[in-house]
Parts: sequence; structure tokens; C-alpha cells
Amino acid sequence: PGGRFTISSDDGAYAVQIGLAFHEDVGGFMGMSPRAGETKGLFPGLTENARRLRIPISFRYKNWIANITPDFGSGSADGSVTLYEANLNYAGIHNTVLTAGYFQPRVTEEDSESSNEFEMMERPAITDIVRNIAAGDARFSIGGLHYAKRWWIAGYLTGQTYGNRSSSTNPISDSQTGATFRVAGRPYVSRDIDVHVGLSAISAFKVNEGAQGRVYSPSEAPEVNLTTTKLLSATVGDAGTVWSAGPELGFRWKRLVLKGEYYHIGVQRKGGADTGNMPATNFEGYYGAANYTLFGKGRAYNIKEGAFSAPGVEHPFDPVHGYWGALELSARYSVADLNSNLGTASAVRGGQQTVWSAGLNWYPNRHFRFMLDFNHFIVTRNSELYNLMGRDGNSVAGRLQAAF
Amino acid sequence: PGGRFTISSDDGAYAVQIGLAFHEDVGGFMGMSPRAGETKGLFPGLTENARRLRIPISFRYKNWIANITPDFGSGSADGSVTLYEANLNYAGIHNTVLTAGYFQPRVTEEDSESSNEFEMMERPAITDIVRNIAAGDARFSIGGLHYAKRWWIAGYLTGQTYGNRSSSTNPISDSQTGATFRVAGRPYVSRDIDVHVGLSAISAFKVNEGAQGRVYSPSEAPEVNLTTTKLLSATVGDAGTVWSAGPELGFRWKRLVLKGEYYHIGVQRKGGADTGNMPATNFEGYYGAANYTLFGKGRAYNIKEGAFSAPGVEHPFDPVHGYWGALELSARYSVADLNSNLGTASAVRGGQQTVWSAGLNWYPNRHFRFMLDFNHFIVTRNSELYNLMGRDGNSVAGRLQAAF
Amino acid sequence: PGGRFTISSDDGAYAVQIGLAFHEDVGGFMGMSPRAGETKGLFPGLTENARRLRIPISFRYKNWIANITPDFGSGSADGSVTLYEANLNYAGIHNTVLTAGYFQPRVTEEDSESSNEFEMMERPAITDIVRNIAAGDARFSIGGLHYAKRWWIAGYLTGQTYGNRSSSTNPISDSQTGATFRVAGRPYVSRDIDVHVGLSAISAFKVNEGAQGRVYSPSEAPEVNLTTTKLLSATVGDAGTVWSAGPELGFRWKRLVLKGEYYHIGVQRKGGADTGNMPATNFEGYYGAANYTLFGKGRAYNIKEGAFSAPGVEHPFDPVHGYWGALELSARYSVADLNSNLGTASAVRGGQQTVWSAGLNWYPNRHFRFMLDFNHFIVTRNSELYNLMGRDGNSVAGRLQAAF
Repeated sequence: PGGRFTISSDDGAYAVQIGLAFHEDVGGFMGMSPRAGETKGLFPGLTENARRLRIPISFRYKNWIANITPDFGSGSADGSVTLYEANLNYAGIHNTVLTAGYFQPRVTEEDSESSNEFEMMERPAITDIVRNIAAGDARFSIGGLHYAKRWWIAGYLTGQTYGNRSSSTNPISDSQTGATFRVAGRPYVSRDIDVHVGLSAISAFKVNEGAQGRVYSPSEAPEVNLTTTKLLSATVGDAGTVWSAGPELGFRWKRLVLKGEYYHIGVQRKGGADTGNMPATNFEGYYGAANYTLFGKGRAYNIKEGAFSAPGVEHPFDPVHGYWGALELSARYSVADLNSNLGTASAVRGGQQTVWSAGLNWYPNRHFRFMLDFNHFIVTRNSELYNLMGRDGNSVAGRLQAAF
Repeated sequence: PGGRFTISSDDGAYAVQIGLAFHEDVGGFMGMSPRAGETKGLFPGLTENARRLRIPISFRYKNWIANITPDFGSGSADGSVTLYEANLNYAGIHNTVLTAGYFQPRVTEEDSESSNEFEMMERPAITDIVRNIAAGDARFSIGGLHYAKRWWIAGYLTGQTYGNRSSSTNPISDSQTGATFRVAGRPYVSRDIDVHVGLSAISAFKVNEGAQGRVYSPSEAPEVNLTTTKLLSATVGDAGTVWSAGPELGFRWKRLVLKGEYYHIGVQRKGGADTGNMPATNFEGYYGAANYTLFGKGRAYNIKEGAFSAPGVEHPFDPVHGYWGALELSARYSVADLNSNLGTASAVRGGQQTVWSAGLNWYPNRHFRFMLDFNHFIVTRNSELYNLMGRDGNSVAGRLQAAF
Repeated sequence: PGGRFTISSDDGAYAVQIGLAFHEDVGGFMGMSPRAGETKGLFPGLTENARRLRIPISFRYKNWIANITPDFGSGSADGSVTLYEANLNYAGIHNTVLTAGYFQPRVTEEDSESSNEFEMMERPAITDIVRNIAAGDARFSIGGLHYAKRWWIAGYLTGQTYGNRSSSTNPISDSQTGATFRVAGRPYVSRDIDVHVGLSAISAFKVNEGAQGRVYSPSEAPEVNLTTTKLLSATVGDAGTVWSAGPELGFRWKRLVLKGEYYHIGVQRKGGADTGNMPATNFEGYYGAANYTLFGKGRAYNIKEGAFSAPGVEHPFDPVHGYWGALELSARYSVADLNSNLGTASAVRGGQQTVWSAGLNWYPNRHFRFMLDFNHFIVTRNSELYNLMGRDGNSVAGRLQAAF
């Protein structure tokens, strides 16, 4: 399906598939001079990154499926080798998939889209922060999803991420447990219109315990993965339960798609024996995005994901015959606020990041895509040496993509 | 064969295969409070581990075969990426396979079984300690095996394990050389009965030389791979030749399989210029195991491995038609003693570990398996900070398995 | 092609391929005693190395191709896991391939040969040093090549190598940019004779900026990859542009192939504010090689590579019928000089390495190869602790190879 190579046995009992999700980024930062007293940070003017280099391999015997996906990208520093997923699935129940193993349980509309089909190169910062609480790539999960033509629901119990305990510098003496939940629906559907509403929730019942105890420390790059310097970065020690929830809204009119989501994050804090429990830490974020397909078949609703999918290519690139594939424009405004209780004894100052972005995606055919994104970002100060005074800057980045 | 996907050329000269060995564990430890003065160690109450995530790929041209098997599990800390094997084979001689390259040369009955077919989730501690002397996963090996209906024999010269010299903190100035030997036979065979006898021997002629000289340092987890804390842990400095040998016994009566093995380990020790040679260090260990297949086809003898294989599934899981796959019960008693010459100047106190375990394995079909193991372990003190006084405890763990 | 497994769709629009480049080395060093005051270095008497364990996977849709090649060898210390290439290609123009992504852009005749077809186990030191300036494995590249029956040309803009920015100890604040160029031709061709001339050039416009600023630091093992100790090793601080260029010459007469190349390397140096620019650093190197095919089909010219390829096997190994595959002999003399401006304030003393080598390659069939190489090397002193006085020594090494 979708061009993924499949070999099946004649009786249909067996099938093996091999695919590819290839995302390589090139670009850099402009206007990133640090203010007085700040260190520079790592903001190269021109660099590259192996963003995703996944080779999904799938083995099926009747209704039982084993998936394994090595990833040679996975990072923001020219690539590293890890695992994207490795899970067992039972698909014997109609429109339902039960899953156990390393998996990406989907929360939020943005995270429910395949990364092959994103409007912009990266998710909004708040989406990444929310999903990393107890979901994200290669999270050990047990749960299931069910979809129908008008609604979608999923829930998973989750543990740690692949490789989590491997650290020699931060030995993990107790592991994370958490859960995710998402429900989405389409209250109105017509040929020209799709209305999407949804609710996502996620919680780490307890974050894992390392050398510094239980610490929740969200951090984010400015919606472009060409630096390891995270201007937005908070550390919440003595963390108890971490939770987040928020609404999803989406609207399609012909070739125009509008989307927005808001999430609140709460972190319960246990103090020391002397201080008693501390006030909860509260973070939040939101984004609004608009997308328009200039030529090609516009974005559509994917009921298996409960999310919007990429434009279709009606005729592959063939300039001799006047075929140019598909082209779309995107714009987004995104805010993530990791400041909490400022001015009190329990203040956490992780900074607030605002990103304005605009992008262009060209699809010469259904398997290849070229993206170009411009971001302008403004980040208020936190306590990192490279962000003592607040930083702002710009990035221009392109992506080479192949998906089979 | 066995459901491994194979593509062959029409003339049979070429074939390529791709398979999967997928083992993921979930579980934790109970009753692991340290005694006074001990550190806690890493014994999470609930955690997970990517135990084996192997993708065997095989290329054949006539009688020559190249195997390569990436492994994304391989560890006890949520997975890491490495190589399970990469070797060349010549299969042009009847019932014989000559091998060179990174390989797992088989010693002991337990190690000769495929990990897809183990009775319990992990090998007995003594089996792991013995095989790691000069065999184990991805060991550079040159040798061969021959099998017949009633006997099995193999021998390999071995070097280091894949990745051995990569350490930046312990540079290797000289490499290990060693050898393995195993012979096994079936003195009595009938429809209801299999009698297995065997002898395994292994030696590291010289262990590799790192920053601390030549050191032999066996260590083991308590037969559950959900912790990196090795309660059983010995260090033998100035090590010369390390050898081990011992008998294998196995007996099948209908659906019941009984097994037991004993191994002695000897480590020759070179002292400093002033002390002269020191007395040899001696370790030992043994186990006894019982297994019964409740439903499904019982365990059988695999002449290619010289070892017992997993139960067969006569009808895949299909509750509507009353088919439940196969189910088996296992129990094991295992001892590994890494104490030697206690009370003398050449004492090595690595601790003695006893493990009582019981397990249940369910096979819904021939490719998937679910395991549940309970272990109770008692480990006497050694000199590790987390085991100054002796430790005991329990573990409960489950495994998700797929094998293609 | 060449036995690579390919699955295509019936209409030819789709194809997927999977292959293997398997190179494992065994051998060691002799006569490597350090001189007075030097440390030993890591020169094992007998060790092994996973030199290349690549699994090339290729996805094609019409004229667009995505390649990805995991590598489980890649090193000199028993293997490590990385990426050899991951790139997108457009092949819609006759005899032309346009490429973007992680790639090995070819410079020099020696580097243009497939590693499956090398005369000796390793490239000459100077070839490795030159290609590593701005090419080598998994270099981010954008460019193209064109070949015809009598000539070959290629040029690429290049960035960093896969994984370059991942270092936690040497954070990269600015990335490398560079370029490569190669043109080659065959002024005279007949059945018995091939004359090859070529020119290769390469430049790092700026090397990347790490914690020590912009540093160019070439280093090489003695043309055998069984040690991580680089006797030849130079460090050029405050490096500006690095460039190299030189001629390629090759000549085939029947089964005899003669080759030689020379390269000069120039490093522009920026001084501190007080010192001003420093004189340029200059390195150089060359090699001459002879190869004769004793039996089998001799080496031939590969117009797609602009380089000589390996002998052909007319009849696979089958001693019963008197077929022994192919056998060739190689010899090489190679010099790499990393000393510059000795006796002046801007001296760089990286040492000069001379290697005499001789080798034997046996091909039982077209997919398997066994190599045996002897090297004698002489390295003059530099400032490394293991080479304070100059070192010489010998190595004997064999290689197991499979290529599909």
C-alpha cells in the first residue's frame, strides 16, 4: 500500500514489507549573535542533519504483525543510530489495532500526522513537549486504537523510551510509567469541508528516577532541528505526576486547511522532608496553522490517523507534458511557555518561545518531497549560559524527503 | 524454512532471506531492599527491556552463504544497537557447515538451543558465564560443525567479540584468543524417549590486555535481564588461561523434558615479578530444569542443534474453533559460585548465586510467543557496594516474542 | 546487476534492491617494539576487525532513487554501527546521476574503485588523507557525475560527515563546507591496452569549528586497519582553506595493471590577532602499484567509475572439474609526508610514512574473495607519545569478503 514493497505468500497467510522514511535537512541560522554576557550556542550558518532515516520492516502471519524500524537519523546532530519502533500487533478485530512494544502512541492532531506528511518541517514546540511527557518515538506501550469513518479513539499505558536506561552517567534506579489518551471526531463532513475536533491527554504518573532523583526537564529547539542548543529549557526537580491535556481543532475548505491546538501542562512537585509539597508548576502552549495547496490534489482527512494528510500528486513531475506534481504553502504561529510561578520561591524559568514560520512543499511525485521553511523565533531568558538575556533569530532550512 | 521469507533465483543458485528474532521484556523486582550499608542498586519495580531485536539477513550463492544480523536489543538497559553475527559459510560438505567471521559458536546444551526456543527467558547463570569465556554472541570464530541423526560435533578457534576494542576508556593492546569444543549424542531414541548426553569445553588461551592488564571478570544478572546491576561479579587479575568443561544430560519422556549441566571453570594466574605464579582460581555452577507441555506438540530433539527445541503448535490460536495454540510449564534450580580460595591470600570473592525459577510459555501460533517467569534469587556477598552483605529478592517478568 | 537482489513491479516503475558488502579482517603486527621512551601503542599480534559490513538498500520510483546503506563495520576497532550512505538520486538524464544527501563523492583513481575491488586491503595513506579533506564515506554532498565511453567527470559541493556534530566533548559551532572535482579519460584503448589519465581536486573551504577552533588534523594507520594507533598524525590549528590536487595515471597491458598518483595538500593558516597570518602548511604523498592476474579474467576498465575493476571469475571454484576461480598478485610502494616547514616557527611535524606492501587475492566465485596482505612500514617521528623516536614494523592481514 502506498508503494511499500510487499511480498506475500500465495495463501495470504504471510507477508513481509520493507519501506523507507528518508528526511535530510540542510540550512542554518541568521542573526544569532548572543547578547552581552551570553555564550554563542551552536547556531551554524550552514549545516545539515539526518533528521529521519527509517527503514520500516514488517512481518505478518495471519492477523499477527511484528514491526521493526531501525532509524539512522533521529537527532539534530548529523544523525545517530537507534530504533524508531519494534512492536507486536493484533489486527483481528475490525478497524482496531492492539499493540505492545516500542511504539509511537499518538497524541495531539499534529503528532497523529505521519512525519512524511507534515505541513512544516517540525512540529510546533508545544506538541513536541506534550508528546515527550509519556509518548514520542520508541516509547514502550501497551494499548490500542479504533477508528471509524467519523471518529477515532486510542489509549496506551506507556513506560520508557528505547535506550533510556543505557546512560552510564545517569543510572536509572526506577523507571517511568504513564499513559496517553486521544479521541477525535468529524462533526461535519462534505466534499469541500472537513471539521475536526479532538481532545488529547497524557500523563507521566512518575518520571524515572536517576542520579538527581525524579526530574522533569522539557527542552526544545526553535522548530528547526539543526542545532543541539535548546534555547527553551526548564528543569523541574522533585517532580511527581506530570500531565497535559488540551483541545484540537481543524477545518478544511477545499484546498485550505486551518488548524490549532492548545495544551496545558501541570507538574505536581514533592518537596524535601523540611519543605513539604511545593506548588504545582504550570506550563502551556498553543499554535495556529494555515495551509493551502497551490496545485495538485489538496490535503484530505485520513480516518486511520484522525488527522489531515499530505496533498496528492495527480501526475508525476514531467515538465515536457506540463506536469509539475504538487505544491503547497504553509504558515504557522506557535508559542510555548516554560515559565511558571515567576517571582515566587517555586519559580521555574524555562523561557517562553514564539515562532513565526512559513514554508513551501513541492512533491514531484508521490514518493519524493522537497521542503523549504523560514522561521523567526523569539525566546525570553532562562538560566542557560547561552540564553541569559533572551535570544531571537531566524532560520532557513530545506528538506530532502523520500517515503516508500 | 520455518516461515523465514526467502527469494530464490529460478536456477536455485541465488537466495536471499530476511527474518526476525523479536524479544521484548517487561517486569520488575520485588523485595530488593538493600541491607544496612549497601547501596540500592538498580532494581526497578516495573521496567522494560529490548532483549533481542535481530534482523537476520542471509545471502546465498550456490554453497556459499553470507549471514549478517543487526541487533537493536542486545542488553539489559532498554536496548542498544549492535551486531549479532556476520559470517561466511561453506555448506558444500554433507551435514557440515564451515564458518568464519562474527558468529555464536555453541557450547553447552542450553546455549545450543535457539533463544527463540528457550524454556525460561534467560539461560542459567553458569551457562552464560561459561559461554562468555570464549564464545557468546558475535565472537570472531573460525571452525565448523557436523551433525548426524545420533550425534553432533563442533569446534571453533575464537577471538574477540564484535566491538571489543572500541572502548576509549580501556584501550586493548593485545587481543583474546581461545577455542570451543562440543560433542553431543543420543544413546537412546524412541518415539516417546530421547536421551541426550554431551560434553562442552571452552578456553580463553589468553584474555585480552587492557589498561589493567589481562583481567578475567565474569558477572551475571539474576537470570532476568531488567537490571544492569550484577550482584554476582568477580574480578581475577593477572589472568592466564581460562578454561571450562562439563557434562550435559537431557531426557525426554513424552511431553516431559528434564535437563541438567555442570561446569567447572579454572583460571590460571600469573603473579607479579615478586610474587610468582598464584594458585589457580576455581569457579563452578550447575542447574537442573524440568519442562512439561500442557497442550500442543511437546518439545522435540533438533539434530541440527544437538539440543531440544520448542513445542509445536498444531492449530493456531482460534478460540471460536477451540484452538489455543500451545502451552508449557518450566521450573529450574540453578547455582553459580564465583567464590574461590576464600580465606587465603589468593581469594576471589565474586559471590554465590542461587536462583529458583518457574515459568509459563504460551504459543498462539508458530511465530509468536508470550512468556511469564518468576525468579527467587539468593546471592552471597562480594565486594560490590550494592552487595556488601548478601542480597536476595524476586523478579516477575514477561516476554513478547516474534520469530520469523 | 552483479547479483544484487532486485524486486521490480510488473510495469517497471518500482524496484527495491538489497545487497551486501562484507569485509572482515584478521591479522596482526610484528616487530613493533617501541624505542626507548615511547609508549607501546595498540599493535596486537593477532586480532580481527569488522572492516565493512554494509547492507545497501535501494528504492526506485521511475527515474528517482533513494539509497540507504547501514554499516556495521566502519572502523578499526572490531566494528561499530553507523551509516555508509543515504542519498536521493535523479537518473533521468543519459549517463548522468544527480545526487543529494549522505554520499561518498569519488576523488582519485583509487577512491573511485569500489572497495570490493581494491588491489590491496586498504587504500594508500595519501589517498585516504586526500579524500578525507572533503569527501570520504557518508559526506553530505550535492552534485553529479557524467560518464561516457572515453571520459568521466564529477563535481560535488560537500558538507560534513554523518555524525560529525554528535560529539559531546567537541561541540561544533560552525560546520564544514567544501567541494570535490574529478575528471578522467582514456586517451588510448585497445583490446590489450587501457591508458588512464585523470585529475582530482578537493577542498575544504572552511573546516568545522569546534572547542579548539578550526583545526585540520589528518592521521592514518599504516595501511592496515587493525589498530587505532595512528603513527602518522598531524595537527594544524587556525586552519583556513585546505585544498589538494594531483594527477592520476594508469596503464593496463593484458593482465598487468600499473597505477600511480601524486597529491599535494595545502593548508592556509590564520594566526591570532597578534601574529597575523602564518605561512601555509604543505603536505604531499604518492604511490605506485602493480597488479597481475595469475588466472581468471584480468582487471578491466569500468567506465561508470572511471577506474579499474576486479578480475572476473570465468568458472566458479570447483576443484573436481579443475576450476579454481581467479587469483591476482599486487605490490605497492606508498609515501605520505605530513611534515611541513620543519625548522621554522610554523613547523608541523606529523611524520612521514613509507609503506611497502604485497598481496594475494583469491576469488572462488564472483561474490566471494579472500585477501592476504603483507606490509612493511617506516614512520618518522612526530610528537605522539607512541612515536617520539620514529617507528617501523610489519603487518600480516587477511580479509574475508562477500559482495552481493
